[in-house]
Amino acid sequence: MTKDANTAISLTECLSQITEHWAPKRVATVNDYDVRVVKILGEFVWHAHPETDELFLVVDGRLTIQLRDGDVTLGPGELYVVPRGVEHCPVADEETSMVLFEPTGTQNTGDAGGPRTREAEPLGPGRR
Amino acid sequence: MTKDANTAISLTECLSQITEHWAPKRVATVNDYDVRVVKILGEFVWHAHPETDELFLVVDGRLTIQLRDGDVTLGPGELYVVPRGVEHCPVADEETSMVLFEPTGTQNTGDAGGPRTREAEPLGPGRR
Repeated sequence: MTKDANTAISLTECLSQITEHWAPKRVATVNDYDVRVVKILGEFVWHAHPETDELFLVVDGRLTIQLRDGDVTLGPGELYVVPRGVEHCPVADEETSMVLFEPTGTQNTGDAGGPRTREAEPLGPGRR
Repeated sequence: MTKDANTAISLTECLSQITEHWAPKRVATVNDYDVRVVKILGEFVWHAHPETDELFLVVDGRLTIQLRDGDVTLGPGELYVVPRGVEHCPVADEETSMVLFEPTGTQNTGDAGGPRTREAEPLGPGRR
């Protein structure tokens, strides 16, 4: 018999629970890494993560990752890994949903800190 | 000016380069973790990864992860993390495309080994 724990996590259902922009929520962990979902709109802050790479995977919308030497633009089903220590500033002209993969405890604002810092709290799982 | 390195990786384009079932290819790394893509069809082998969790995210098709205490079925945009040490056996009745996230060096057949073992070699990135 299938236990309740044996249930897939739906990214769409998780994202439907998010109301605040730029506030990542943890939906799963892989060892000491978080799978986070986040909705964004507008421009974030320039920052870097000196200690870790950071993966962005767009689910819906369009994300531009501004880098000091050029921009990367991602649509649905596209990913990019910002290497550790590389300054970046995400921006989205339309509401964009994405998945982040990074070590648990990684701060969204990295070395910049400031008022847009959010803890990646757990989201009630989006179960089918 | 945008350098060539500043290019998104398209999961669809990566998956379009895959011809062999059950042969994961690395498309990106996040620190010492691999982002792998794989196409599957039919049943794999029962195995466990004693040292690591393993994330499955379905892109297209339908994946059933058989577990000793029940099955988990995933459609597109759904994910599941098999905890370390938990025996599992993936199966797909139709060709299914998915993303795996796990530490670099994780063997696809885990503690079972055998003829279906494949190294997760790098795939030429699916660039737009």
